[in-house]
Amino acid sequence: MWIAGAGMTRFGRRDETLPDLMAEAALSALADAMIEQPDGLVVAAMNPEEFTGAGNYGSLINTHLGLSHVPSLRVETATSSGVAAVYSAFAAIASGLHKTVLVVGGEKMSHVPTPRVSEIIGRSIDPHERSYGTTMPALAGLITRAAMHRRGLTLREISQVAVKNHANGTRNPLAHFQEAVTLEAVMESRFVADPLRLFHCCPISDGAAAIVMTSEPAEVRIAGIGQGTDTIAMRYRSDLTAFVATQTAAQAAYKMAGFGPERVEVAEIHDAFAPFEIISLEDTGLIPPGKAGRATLEGETALDGRLPINTSGGLKARGHPLAGTGIAQIVELCWQLRGMAAGRQVHAQVALAHSIGGLATNNWVTLLEARR
Amino acid sequence: MWIAGAGMTRFGRRDETLPDLMAEAALSALADAMIEQPDGLVVAAMNPEEFTGAGNYGSLINTHLGLSHVPSLRVETATSSGVAAVYSAFAAIASGLHKTVLVVGGEKMSHVPTPRVSEIIGRSIDPHERSYGTTMPALAGLITRAAMHRRGLTLREISQVAVKNHANGTRNPLAHFQEAVTLEAVMESRFVADPLRLFHCCPISDGAAAIVMTSEPAEVRIAGIGQGTDTIAMRYRSDLTAFVATQTAAQAAYKMAGFGPERVEVAEIHDAFAPFEIISLEDTGLIPPGKAGRATLEGETALDGRLPINTSGGLKARGHPLAGTGIAQIVELCWQLRGMAAGRQVHAQVALAHSIGGLATNNWVTLLEARR
Repeated sequence: MWIAGAGMTRFGRRDETLPDLMAEAALSALADAMIEQPDGLVVAAMNPEEFTGAGNYGSLINTHLGLSHVPSLRVETATSSGVAAVYSAFAAIASGLHKTVLVVGGEKMSHVPTPRVSEIIGRSIDPHERSYGTTMPALAGLITRAAMHRRGLTLREISQVAVKNHANGTRNPLAHFQEAVTLEAVMESRFVADPLRLFHCCPISDGAAAIVMTSEPAEVRIAGIGQGTDTIAMRYRSDLTAFVATQTAAQAAYKMAGFGPERVEVAEIHDAFAPFEIISLEDTGLIPPGKAGRATLEGETALDGRLPINTSGGLKARGHPLAGTGIAQIVELCWQLRGMAAGRQVHAQVALAHSIGGLATNNWVTLLEARR
Repeated sequence: MWIAGAGMTRFGRRDETLPDLMAEAALSALADAMIEQPDGLVVAAMNPEEFTGAGNYGSLINTHLGLSHVPSLRVETATSSGVAAVYSAFAAIASGLHKTVLVVGGEKMSHVPTPRVSEIIGRSIDPHERSYGTTMPALAGLITRAAMHRRGLTLREISQVAVKNHANGTRNPLAHFQEAVTLEAVMESRFVADPLRLFHCCPISDGAAAIVMTSEPAEVRIAGIGQGTDTIAMRYRSDLTAFVATQTAAQAAYKMAGFGPERVEVAEIHDAFAPFEIISLEDTGLIPPGKAGRATLEGETALDGRLPINTSGGLKARGHPLAGTGIAQIVELCWQLRGMAAGRQVHAQVALAHSIGGLATNNWVTLLEARR
């Protein structure tokens, strides 16, 4: 399975409509792939009805692209919807039902008041737990506190994730935030959900990303893709400080690829909250258990480190337009593998993308490899 | 590709939550298939966020079923979402990524005021056309008027669809409506969107349906499945009186199956509005162009006719819980092919299911065959 083209919009506050953002990303990916007509379309959007007032996005987008005759589906797994769409396209092509599938995902929400955005995204939390007022940042705060207590994670380590990702964002012209932040600024920003502060949390971003997947060899190969799930209710989990859904997804992806984390040279990790990058580096096996915090602090995951993580700026600095994010991670890694990441280019043949859906209920790991 | 088990809830006004309805259907299908653990789950729901206030349905349902470790996705193509989920499962199994996939779809909306339901469902209409106040019944009325003018369809023919489907509903204990209606009652019911009257329109129903799909031979085979799409905007279509999306879907399904409409002996047709049954009988090739109205009036599509259509009662009488409908059609046909449709059993080896998404923007045709 190959990726023949990749494209994305600038992330951030955008005035365009979601269909226009998706079209910008999709047309860019189609042009990159040098094809005009995919024979399938998979659209990812998490909450387009609530945010944009329109539904039926599969049909809305194929018509908007001038591809109304191209079979189209919408796929959703909360914040990992983008990769769920990639997986659907993977299955559609691997089954022989389709040959070339355009996958596009995105979200438009910066025009919606923040409390309403928070409420809508919060619907991906277990309804019983939500009935007590739980929000995504509140649960992330709970997990962070538990990880600090049980795994010795420190606030400096967590904060360094944000510093690093903002530094990477300064090198990405498509990133939502392109300004550096200091460790002090992160650690002194206002509380969102103790111990998490504002600069530990990703912003509310608009944007879209797209790839063209094909059965014909191209520059980037999808070597493996794996899904992992866990209970939507946090209270049913035995451990809050690691994500079983990531561990399962990583195992499945490595199994399909036939290699393990040792071959990965660059990765995009779902840092919706800064501590999740550290937790996920360990869940994916990229860094041994208990070592990712220190590795971050020591610069191992920086752009010039041993294992650059979130060269795009991550969710923290590139931004997190929900269903756009999982695809944007893959776009960034395609550019890295193809030597097109000007200003932040690293040396890599193998890359890993990691996406979290909901509060780690539906996660994905994708392994990409440059054509040799 | 095989269907190893099928199940559904009673459709109608239900007090249970959507997860409970989905669980009822899913557990029934799993029991029928005599398996406990599928290795994949595809959930179909059209507007669960708006109707139920909860999201992340892939994870919500796998957790609710006690299958939180089973990879789960949500798929949506408006009112045909149920079959889109079947197609996703088909691809997942045909690709070798999964072996046994549970597909469950449904909707819970009878608790929501009707104008709000109408507005939410209306979001699957092109936003520009919707900005002029268009609703689904309004567009259906427009299409019906055009079909009467250009194709000579009569109100008696259209009304007979409702009479027949209500008659079938009296024989289906799971149907929303189990009362017969007379031609006069249909033709004199109040206007919804001229020329459509109340009894030409399907009700607002709650309910869920599920099937278990597998690579292992079972009693019912999916011989073919095809998708067809068309512009979301009605104003871009050259003809309002036939649905290109159905024609394309049927061609694809027949091509995969290797046979044509002549082998079909029973069918479930998407009669959200009664005239759509007549239009769709011709679009699927089951009845020659211009003949389906008269065939209906003459009883050819009745339970004891040459080609029984909507033995379940159809959307009109069985009910139409949006994403549940496409799967419920397949459930009914599985029961027919397995000789389990007590009280309304017909003789058939080959069956066709036809589902419309939005205003015929994303349609599906599925061909089922009894194991020989």
